[in-house]
Order: sequence, then structure tokens, then C-alpha cells
Amino acid sequence: MSTLCQKETRTPATCLGSGSTQGLHSSNGDDVERECSRKPDQKPLKCYRVGDPTAMFSPNSPHLSSRGSVIKWFWDSAEEGYRTYHMDEYDEDKNPNGIINLGTSENKLCFDLLTRRLSQSDMLWVEPSLLQYPDWRGHLFLREEVARFLSFYCKSPAPLKPENVVVLNGCASLFSALATVLCEAGEAFLIPAPYYGSITQHVCLYGGVRLVCVYLDSEVTGLETRPFQLTVEKLEMALQGANSEGVKVKGLILINPHNPLGDVYSLGELQEYLDFAKRHELHVIVDEIYLLSVFEKSVEFHSVLSLERLPDSQRTHVMWAASKDFGMSGIRFGTLYTENRDVATAVASLCRYHSLSGLVQYQMAQLFRDRDWINQVYLPENHARLKAAHTYVSEELRALGIPFLSRGAGFFIWANLGKYLPEATFEQEMLLWRRFLDNKVLLSFGKAFECKEPGWFRLVFSDRMHRLRLGMQRVRQVLESESQVAADAPSCQTQEPRGPRSHCED
Amino acid sequence: MSTLCQKETRTPATCLGSGSTQGLHSSNGDDVERECSRKPDQKPLKCYRVGDPTAMFSPNSPHLSSRGSVIKWFWDSAEEGYRTYHMDEYDEDKNPNGIINLGTSENKLCFDLLTRRLSQSDMLWVEPSLLQYPDWRGHLFLREEVARFLSFYCKSPAPLKPENVVVLNGCASLFSALATVLCEAGEAFLIPAPYYGSITQHVCLYGGVRLVCVYLDSEVTGLETRPFQLTVEKLEMALQGANSEGVKVKGLILINPHNPLGDVYSLGELQEYLDFAKRHELHVIVDEIYLLSVFEKSVEFHSVLSLERLPDSQRTHVMWAASKDFGMSGIRFGTLYTENRDVATAVASLCRYHSLSGLVQYQMAQLFRDRDWINQVYLPENHARLKAAHTYVSEELRALGIPFLSRGAGFFIWANLGKYLPEATFEQEMLLWRRFLDNKVLLSFGKAFECKEPGWFRLVFSDRMHRLRLGMQRVRQVLESESQVAADAPSCQTQEPRGPRSHCED
Repeated sequence: MSTLCQKETRTPATCLGSGSTQGLHSSNGDDVERECSRKPDQKPLKCYRVGDPTAMFSPNSPHLSSRGSVIKWFWDSAEEGYRTYHMDEYDEDKNPNGIINLGTSENKLCFDLLTRRLSQSDMLWVEPSLLQYPDWRGHLFLREEVARFLSFYCKSPAPLKPENVVVLNGCASLFSALATVLCEAGEAFLIPAPYYGSITQHVCLYGGVRLVCVYLDSEVTGLETRPFQLTVEKLEMALQGANSEGVKVKGLILINPHNPLGDVYSLGELQEYLDFAKRHELHVIVDEIYLLSVFEKSVEFHSVLSLERLPDSQRTHVMWAASKDFGMSGIRFGTLYTENRDVATAVASLCRYHSLSGLVQYQMAQLFRDRDWINQVYLPENHARLKAAHTYVSEELRALGIPFLSRGAGFFIWANLGKYLPEATFEQEMLLWRRFLDNKVLLSFGKAFECKEPGWFRLVFSDRMHRLRLGMQRVRQVLESESQVAADAPSCQTQEPRGPRSHCED
Repeated sequence: MSTLCQKETRTPATCLGSGSTQGLHSSNGDDVERECSRKPDQKPLKCYRVGDPTAMFSPNSPHLSSRGSVIKWFWDSAEEGYRTYHMDEYDEDKNPNGIINLGTSENKLCFDLLTRRLSQSDMLWVEPSLLQYPDWRGHLFLREEVARFLSFYCKSPAPLKPENVVVLNGCASLFSALATVLCEAGEAFLIPAPYYGSITQHVCLYGGVRLVCVYLDSEVTGLETRPFQLTVEKLEMALQGANSEGVKVKGLILINPHNPLGDVYSLGELQEYLDFAKRHELHVIVDEIYLLSVFEKSVEFHSVLSLERLPDSQRTHVMWAASKDFGMSGIRFGTLYTENRDVATAVASLCRYHSLSGLVQYQMAQLFRDRDWINQVYLPENHARLKAAHTYVSEELRALGIPFLSRGAGFFIWANLGKYLPEATFEQEMLLWRRFLDNKVLLSFGKAFECKEPGWFRLVFSDRMHRLRLGMQRVRQVLESESQVAADAPSCQTQEPRGPRSHCED
């Protein structure tokens, strides 16, 4: 189930893919963008970018170090929308004119189920060992439960081992820890872009590690079967490019199911990416935080832990958390699975700074061992609600004639609003985003995901219907009040990606 | 209440103070030790040391960065005793020959009270806002409660403000965050030594920040009123020394009540240290994690937040946590109070990596607002139990003729076992520590606190009587089996520190 419903528009940069480099303005003078040569008959392609988030501004506080100023800058600017939302949150009764949040990737569909389960009396257990300093890797009882849980849901060929599990307070922390123990400051990870933009901060703020974006194209070319497809060719080009600039690349980050695309990788793709990494002695960090949020039955997800044999098990590190699949980003539970004992130990050593309460460790173990509730109550209901919400937003977008990807995993739809930009620039993308926010609906703009083409937005659909309706109504209001660009747009033209998992809805 | 019960011994380095530099072996070839000139009639003094924990070893893992190897090394070696203990914990029924832990600074005296309180039904509350991404500074309801709590217990002249509060998962994290936002890598904080040795890791592992030890002497000299007294003269000398080596010092760390000394600073002292810091434009991080663990009624503790006017409020940052005063290091709650908005914001930005569960935030707010329980149940009983345990261990040490400090705050006694060392070296100190561990009792040795004189140990007394008795029995066994040094030692000679708060128990 892979769809790109694409309209032709008069704005030049919408889905023009690899040839469309005009209008790609960098917000960062020090960022590096390079054109890689492709086959002779193809246009040059901006295939990667070495990010340097610290180059964006000059320090401004006399009391902070220069890195402290960078860290503060991320708070001040990068989360502007999130904080604006928090100051004016929509509430049906108390603040009906407040902001509807279709920007933050949270699942708000199952708080009823979760509240009921977490309020049961087995969730409040206090004993001295939970009140004392823990094993910083996580209490053994929890690591055992996590190993069983991941063995089952990742379909590992053999039982996973508690000694390979490290528990901590979320995947943000895990990115920070892994970046620090795998890389020196200034070294880099490859990451296919668009990607969940916060990873930039996670590897940079403490670790000073950079990301080399491997740009993906909305246009399907060559042997590709779908838009924004990651290929080994693109990985190779980005790696070579970074190397040629003297940037030492230490690893590859894969997000699967993907944020913001919603893609899940096929077994063959996974194998190819892992082989690529092994060939270049790169670590692979596989972020599977949405592994239980594949709501479309026809989509088959393959955890990297399900492989019979990992090409390079000592360099393959898997992360998961309860934030997305259990809709509890406020609980702060995340976990690493790695067979590399040195990496596990080094991350554990940093877990003093990423530890979670003993009482929460107990609660998480209780939750993970309650398979009846997970399998019979939570997952079926959660998937049904995700699917219904996804259907609603998809239909709204279709009615508006907006091209979007529709994959059947995750909480979001990746949609192309490029036709509403008077010019295909990120400045115009940001202006459109602000108009949404002014109209009290928060979305996420593509630049925040390092998408190389302006105009893409991520819409989170995992919310209750009354908020979705109001949110989409506000989105529609903004789009309808936009320039004649929208009014004049021709009808939706289907671009059908190839491959067995792909078809186009119209 | 300040005591140094000191024996003369035949081992040269016991309490010889400033003149005693022989036998001070550094475990780190790259560490810098310098003799500062004092007044002409005094011997030169090793008055400070610039630490460089990363110089201790060479990287050993092909899969880790060099800093990753440092981080792993801290896990492998620095916590050897702690992990040995965890593999063989004493249990009255299940493992009576297991290790008794008098090394880790935890309060195990009140688990009955805490378990009862935390198990009450008001402690289990689940609502959607607690399951969603929080304000990374901490939920407002908790920051408001923390501000009220600190206003009351720190006796602030005006109510403290929630917007100056940042909540995170413990003081370890807070040290890490503050070091990173206040210093560049390689810059340093001054810290009087001996000090709680883990701070070395906390500022170094992520932040790459170093500590400049300001060495304190067991000998009372000049105008000093007690052993190991911090004076502005010592701070000035250490700062000058570090500057002269090109080490940029950005702040001063004060621990009050002090770990491991148990000292509390007088108002006058506090003011002097803060004035020193202001003079040199240094940040001051005041760690008041033991503020409610002053169990001796005659000892008056002054929080830095009780001052009518801070000399440099923009550079004064206070930390507190529930780990010690509420005996719940496993809950992972810590907090920063600072009037510097930039510092608060920068730390908040890092709080993504140090966040605590919404459910725990709710529990902590419930606890802090239950003043009846805190004031009428918990604190009186906790202080009575701390005092009884302290009395018992003090008497045991006195019976053994061991010199020690006795201050009336904290969970530990700082004792001088120098007479049991065949030579006054840190190697011998470590050997004695291992003999304790072999005899199934874990203590902390002075080198771990960067004490400059070998032979000092920290004994944690905040444990139930049956464990304390067995622990002290094992300590006694080791000491009695030691060389004739102990057997030949003369009777305890009193060294009476001057000053109104000091007297010597014998």
C-alpha cells in the first residue's frame, strides 16, 4: 500500500525530483551541498548534504559556553511551534479556539485503554530495591521482559538476550548516547532524508555528531519502485561525497517504519542496506520505534532482529520505545538491543544520565508481560483506530487534490502542498506553515525533516475525530484562502510507483 | 558539632596535613600536581590538581570512539566495588554471607515509611497529559510544587519562582547538563577535595569538562577552625595555579552539606566563597542534595537560597534531589534552581535526555505537597534513625581508636584508617579496601574522593542496625588482622578544632 497522488502544478519544484534543484535555499551558509555526477544522460543531482547545526548562529549569552548557546538556540527556535501550541492548546470546553496539534507525532487515540490499564492496582508497587540505585542498564527483571517482548514482536529466530538490552528514558537519549560512544565530535552518520528532524539535535547537542543527509527524491526514476526510495547507489554516493570532504562517517541511521514517509523496508532492501554498511564498516542504528504501529494488514513489517543472520551483528544496534507504539511519550521508556558488548557497556555507562524511575521500570515490565491485553485489547483496537483516522485524513486530502504518500504505518501522512507556494522555496514553505499556525493548526514543514524539495508537510492523523475534523477544517481554510495557484490547479494526476507493495489511490 | 578524633601513629601520612606530601602517588601520569608557595615560614603545599580523566588509559575497543572507550572504562573500573556488591548482595535470609554495603551513600533507614506513603492510592494517577510529551523543564504543576518546597525548606526570604525551576532525572544529569552549557570541552570547575568523586564523571563523560581539585588538609593550621576547612586563600591559589597552566576555570562547585566530610558551611563562609566567585566571574554550582539530612539539632544549615541577596544571582545555580533526603535514589528526581534564564533554558533544552516519567512527576508533586507527612512523620523519624545509626558507628570507631570526623549531617563518617597502612600510599589504601571487600564489606576509599592523603575512608551509616552491626564486625575483623601497626598504636590523641561549632569527642 504505497501511494503518491500527485498533481501537476505551476509551481516548479513540486515533485520534480532529482532535476529540481532551483529554489533549494539553505538556511545555513556553512552547510555543504554538492552535486554528484550520475550516469552521463542524467542531470547532476544534489544527492547529499553535510549538516552543521552549530554554524547557524553566533553565541548570544555571556553566561553560556558556545555549545551552551547552540543548545539554548535549539530550544528557542527549533521548537517554536511546539511551544506556541503548549501555550494555547485546544480544549473542547476550555479553549475551543486553541491550537489543534497535527504536528507532533503522538498517538492520542487510545488514552482510554491506556489509562484503564495503567490505573490497575498491579501498576503501583513499591519495594526497597526499586527505591535504590538501579543497575544503570535497567533492572534485570525489566531487561528480561524486554528481551521476551522484542523476541516475540520482532519475530527473532532465536530468543533475544537480556544482557544485550539496555533500558533508558527514550530514544532521544539513546541517539545521544550512541552518537557519543560511536563517534568523535565532528564525525557523522548517514541518514536518508527526509527524516525525523529531531535526530539532528539528539546526535549533536551532547555528542557534537553531524548528519550526512542522503537525499531522496519524490520522483520515481530508474529502477526505483516508489517515491523517496532509498537505494544503495544513493548511500554510496553520499558516503563518497562526505569522505571526499574529509568528513568521517561512522554509521548509517535507518528508521523503519519510516518517519515521516511511513515506508517499511522490504527484507531485500534491509539486507542491501546492511550489506552496504558492512562493506564500509559502518555501524547501523535501526530505529524501529513504530514497529507495532503498522495498521494496514497488507503491509508486512520486518524487524532487523527477524533476520536469520545479521551481516555485521557487532555493528547493528536496534532501538525501540514505548512512546509511539504504546502512545506514551510521557512515560519515557526506550531500549537498545545490541550484541556488541562494548557498545552496550558504554551506553550503560551513560545511562546514569538517562535513567528511569524504578517504579516506572516495574510498570513497564507489568505492561510488557500482559500479552493478553496487548494482543487482544490494545493492538487490535489501536490499529483499527489508526486506520479509521488515516482513512479520514486521506479522504480529506484527496478531496483537496493534494498529493500524498499513504503507506499504512506510523501516525502521519507526508503530503505535498507545493502547489500552494507562490515560489518553490523554503521561505514560502515556512510562511505557509505560519499561516496554518495563525489559523490554529500546527503542522510540520518539510524543511524540518531536511526534505530537499520545498512544499512537503507532515500531517499527524493519530488523534480523536473531533480534533481531526477541526484540524482539517482549519487546514482547508488556509489552503482555500491561498492564491489562485490552488484554484487553478489541474486535477490530480496519478503517478503509480512500481513494485508489488505499491498502488496508487485516487 | 565537629570532631576530629586523631591518633598519633607510626605511619607518616596520617593527618600530617600540608607538610605531608610524601607518599602521595598519582594514579595518573598526566595529572598535574603543583606546589604553591605559602608564607615564607611554611613548607610548600600541594594545593591543587587539574584532573584529566581521559588520560588514564588507551582506547581498547575497535567499535567505540576514543571518548566511548573512556566512557566504557568508567563503567569497567570506576564502579568495580559497586558492581561486585550487586553480584553478591547481603540478604539476611537468602545470602547472609553476601556483601554489606557501607560504601554507597544511600539512606536505607526509612523504606518502611516511604513504601507506606508511596503505596497510597493517591500515588497512582494516570491522565493523558502525563502520557504525552511534557514541557521538558518539567510539568508546571511539579515546578510550582518544587518552588514552594524549596522556599520552605531552604528558608528563602521571598517565594521562589516556578520559572526558575528545571526538573530532571537526578543531580548526576544536572551536573552533566550544567557542565556542558557553562563550559567548553577542556574547561574546568574548581572543587574542594575531598569531594563526591562521581562528579568527575558527571562533568566529563558528556561535557569533557575537568575538575581542578582544591586540596583541603586534615591538619588545622593558621586561622582555620576545623580539619579539611575550605578557605578563600586555597580557592585563590588553586584558581591562580590553574590559570597559570592555561586551564580556563568557569565555576566553583560547592557541596553543602558536604560529601564526604559532613560539613555544613556557616553563613559567613558561604558569603566568602560566593564573593570569591563573583570577584572572578565564576559560576557557583551549589549542590544541596543533603539539605534535609542534617540530623543533629545543634547544627544549623544555611541554604544558599536563604541569603537575603546573592552576590551574583546570575551565576549561582542550586541543585537538589530526592535521592538522599527522601532516600529514593531509584526514583530519579532532581532539580535545578537558577535565576539565570539562559542557563535554565539551555539546561531545559538538554532535558529531553534527562526527562522523567509524567507519572513520577505526579508522584513527586504529591509527596512534596504532603507537608504533614514530611514534617510530622518522615523527617523526625528519619533524623532520629540517622542519629542512632551515626551514634552506633561512631562508638564502634571510637572503640577501635580510629580518628574520624563527626558533623551531624549526611549519611557517612569520614574516618582515618591511615594507621593500618604499612606505607602511606594510595596503593596500600586500595589494598586495604580490597581486604574489606574480600571480607564482604564495601567501603569507599579516600582516593575515590581525590583526598590528597592516603588512608581516609568513607563509611556510610544510614542502614538498619543488623546490617550495620555485621558490617562493622567485618570492618573490625579486617583491622584486627592487620599488621602490628594497629596493635602498637598509642591511645587517641585529641586534636580540638577551634570555632563555636567544634568540639572533640573522645
